[in-house]
Amino acid sequence: MAQKPSIPKGTRDFSPIEVAKRESIFSTIKQVFQTFGFQQIETPSFENSSTLMGKYGDEGDRLIFKILNSGDYLKDIRNRLLNSADFCNGFYEIFDSIVCLQDKENEAKYIDYISNVVNEFNYSYENDKEFMKECFLTNREKILNYYKEQPTDEESLTERILFKDNLFVDLFLKHLSSLEILDSKKVTKFISEKALRYDLTVPFARYVVQHQNDIELPFKRFQIQPVWRADRPQKGRFREFYQCDADVIGSKSLWQEIEFIQLYDTVFSKLGLIGTTIKINNRKILSGITEIIGAKDKLIDFTVALDKLDKIGAEGVTKEMTAKGISEEAIEKVAPLFSFNGTSSEKLDQLEEMLVGSEIGLQGIKDIRFIVDKVNALGLKTASLDVDVTLARGLNYYTGAIFEVTAPEGVKMGSIGGGGRYDDLTGIFGLKNMSGVGISFGLDRIYLVLEELNLLGKFKQPRPKVVFINFGDEEAFYASKAIQKLREKGVKSELYPDAAKMKKQMNYANKRGIPFVVLVGSKEIEANTYTLKNMQSGEQQECNLEELLNLVINS
Amino acid sequence: MAQKPSIPKGTRDFSPIEVAKRESIFSTIKQVFQTFGFQQIETPSFENSSTLMGKYGDEGDRLIFKILNSGDYLKDIRNRLLNSADFCNGFYEIFDSIVCLQDKENEAKYIDYISNVVNEFNYSYENDKEFMKECFLTNREKILNYYKEQPTDEESLTERILFKDNLFVDLFLKHLSSLEILDSKKVTKFISEKALRYDLTVPFARYVVQHQNDIELPFKRFQIQPVWRADRPQKGRFREFYQCDADVIGSKSLWQEIEFIQLYDTVFSKLGLIGTTIKINNRKILSGITEIIGAKDKLIDFTVALDKLDKIGAEGVTKEMTAKGISEEAIEKVAPLFSFNGTSSEKLDQLEEMLVGSEIGLQGIKDIRFIVDKVNALGLKTASLDVDVTLARGLNYYTGAIFEVTAPEGVKMGSIGGGGRYDDLTGIFGLKNMSGVGISFGLDRIYLVLEELNLLGKFKQPRPKVVFINFGDEEAFYASKAIQKLREKGVKSELYPDAAKMKKQMNYANKRGIPFVVLVGSKEIEANTYTLKNMQSGEQQECNLEELLNLVINS
Repeated sequence: MAQKPSIPKGTRDFSPIEVAKRESIFSTIKQVFQTFGFQQIETPSFENSSTLMGKYGDEGDRLIFKILNSGDYLKDIRNRLLNSADFCNGFYEIFDSIVCLQDKENEAKYIDYISNVVNEFNYSYENDKEFMKECFLTNREKILNYYKEQPTDEESLTERILFKDNLFVDLFLKHLSSLEILDSKKVTKFISEKALRYDLTVPFARYVVQHQNDIELPFKRFQIQPVWRADRPQKGRFREFYQCDADVIGSKSLWQEIEFIQLYDTVFSKLGLIGTTIKINNRKILSGITEIIGAKDKLIDFTVALDKLDKIGAEGVTKEMTAKGISEEAIEKVAPLFSFNGTSSEKLDQLEEMLVGSEIGLQGIKDIRFIVDKVNALGLKTASLDVDVTLARGLNYYTGAIFEVTAPEGVKMGSIGGGGRYDDLTGIFGLKNMSGVGISFGLDRIYLVLEELNLLGKFKQPRPKVVFINFGDEEAFYASKAIQKLREKGVKSELYPDAAKMKKQMNYANKRGIPFVVLVGSKEIEANTYTLKNMQSGEQQECNLEELLNLVINS
Repeated sequence: MAQKPSIPKGTRDFSPIEVAKRESIFSTIKQVFQTFGFQQIETPSFENSSTLMGKYGDEGDRLIFKILNSGDYLKDIRNRLLNSADFCNGFYEIFDSIVCLQDKENEAKYIDYISNVVNEFNYSYENDKEFMKECFLTNREKILNYYKEQPTDEESLTERILFKDNLFVDLFLKHLSSLEILDSKKVTKFISEKALRYDLTVPFARYVVQHQNDIELPFKRFQIQPVWRADRPQKGRFREFYQCDADVIGSKSLWQEIEFIQLYDTVFSKLGLIGTTIKINNRKILSGITEIIGAKDKLIDFTVALDKLDKIGAEGVTKEMTAKGISEEAIEKVAPLFSFNGTSSEKLDQLEEMLVGSEIGLQGIKDIRFIVDKVNALGLKTASLDVDVTLARGLNYYTGAIFEVTAPEGVKMGSIGGGGRYDDLTGIFGLKNMSGVGISFGLDRIYLVLEELNLLGKFKQPRPKVVFINFGDEEAFYASKAIQKLREKGVKSELYPDAAKMKKQMNYANKRGIPFVVLVGSKEIEANTYTLKNMQSGEQQECNLEELLNLVINS
């Protein structure tokens, strides 16, 4: 019963030639990272779930690949769920309010409070919410009576009702049993405590905090590793893909932003990818705009809508902003953004006019102008720098510069790189006030772009330079001595493993495009020579070992 | 509420210097693989569970990291369990035998048969087995009556009883509800369909079958990727670690075994790891021994016990063999193996004597002698080759040669590499009769051994060659022009990002051991020069751009 072999969707095998092409891109990026002063680190493929969950929004949490705990992960799952902080806290809160119900005068107020607590508690689990509400409201009298019979110490009473007398535990267990087994969302954290890396930025923040005593600040690190996302696969979007990240942490200097633009330009120039556009924006400008139009509280809605300009057009953006409750008047004020053009400098002039009166907005203009001026004065090789005020990118942690790189015009591919500045990424792990800025290269998309533009054509199927035909053990032994010498000199060489038919062996050499074949028969062994055949010219010559080495090495 | 950052046990962060050291080992191995004619491939980090499960024994299955399905993975889990092939097959088998109960004459025989089927079915789930037995035996009369009322077509009747009339489905559902939620072992395949790579060999076998039309045989591939095992972490054993594998598939030639021994020797010699021992055995010899002692059916028990010789001694091995039912007489026959010594050639002579009469055993001797003779004639650089008849290794798929490499004497570390020949690895994926042989390097253990022997001391913390002190934006801009030129020449250079106090910047250069510092003030800008300070000698000199480049590049 043989299995038909396949791999999970969104993942890929890489053949020798694909590996060679990818390696050449990796090595270009790596070498440039190093000349720019970055140091390589690596982090584990999986992190504790608590490190990753909640860092990428609800959608991100959903797309994180979770790893099942080892062993009997479902053991005692009902009780574990029940004793978890989520449930206990809910119980405690509700009980604390029930205790207050003794105060008859304010009963209405307390009932109201309980309802609120029940409503707030465990808000994402509709079934439970309804159950809890029902459970407490219908049992109100019973609970109050129960309470009156007891001594008065609040805390110990609550604890006893909950855990010793188990009044509610039984009710709750019954309730859990009645559910269609268990709710996936609720169960996950009880059966999975590790998750695959979703990006390289959060693990880097974790690394910096964990190893802060071993790091010299400012710390310039790069990292080239795969990440995993349970996203729907499509062109240029995989479930396993590589990120190549460089970040500097511990400095607010805008010179970093300047260097990152130069770094992008250097890498893409070295890869032969002419005509990329490095788009730059600043979160402060976006904040300033919403401030000016009186929609400061709608920053996220506003930027999410604006970010879609190239997809849904001015009309679509207007519609979405209106739907999100941004006033017509406000939208009118920002309308010029919808048809923004001109040089970066011209755009910045216009923006500055629009932002008069917003301190943060003008700071954003000043920052971006500094960067653009310096980059232009130092010059870029093949990339263009373009201020794009619609650029927001999904990640909420950017606080300053935002970058995105697009492929040369005509190539249909989402962004091939992006990044930005985040003022407090390590804060979530307990290290405050560490500003960081970084960029990422999307290796897999860059690969697809280079392929589409025929820029990887120079790579040939990896193969040895010379193969020795195998005529039998005696000949193979004689050949092995020469092979040993060739390999010592770093020449990729192999012995055809079996004494197969000559034709089969020659076919193998031909199909793999191996440039040299060496023939060793009893004649050669006797004369202590080798017959070298140049597979391209067909030329054949008998030579001794030294001549053979020279001929193969120097060709 | 900051999280204290940590990583899952058995995983590691790698600092810049650790990455540099590891990279140097990878690159040595990779370069040798290539000179030996191997081509690199890569496979996804996770495979379909069906590709991995059942390939490494029960213990392996347990140690495989499983990935939780995305979305509502518990949805409808009861019914999914119930409708699964495992359960249905069991039902079918039992029903088929119930149908036979009509044949009154042979009733006793059939009841016996049912009991057996019930006993065999789902053997690993004790609760279910008991339930099934009870369920069928107590309902026997009812089932028979039920059966008599029905038409006679066997198959349709079974189907109706099971799936249309749902007689047993209800019973079974009730039974499932009564279990402590659900059994982890049974649930796993319903909530997890992907698993992290456990080794590189099974994915390689899957690759060969899946891409068989794009591959030239014999196919020599290498692969350097991490693997994951949920093993208990200890010294030299991690939950995420790298394997470096080279395999040849599609040839039975023993020249491959010879080349692999040379390959091990070449890599370890290049790494400076002098005095490794490459142990070699052959599964055929082990088969021959059990044949000779009349314990052919106990091959696995025998080899597992023998493999423990260096851990539990001759007495322990004897005890274990006895416990496994190997006769005293048989053990006496193999006793010479327990105190085997001498040269490989002497050992082989003794073995040959012992194996007279076993065709397969003598073939094993012949194979291993061929390999040892050729390797010795061609010569090894720094490794020793040693025939070790106790060597079995865990993996059951080896059919010919078995290899294991141990670190130089005095270093306490398990094996640092191993491998062997497997005659039919791709068979499980539907491609028969493909012989393969391969070896693996345990990167993480090799690293630990090299560290212990102080062989990685030459590596220094990665750092730029030159850092430019930052005195302000004007100076930084002037410095950036020189930095651009240095980077174009491939010199690792950086600008200190902030115009911090001079002392702080110099401290940074000192602590990181950066060899050169460049100072740029208004004096230098005016004179169009740079002041270069050699941090080791303390020497300082003013120079123009060209001189600066020359001085830094050529030092």
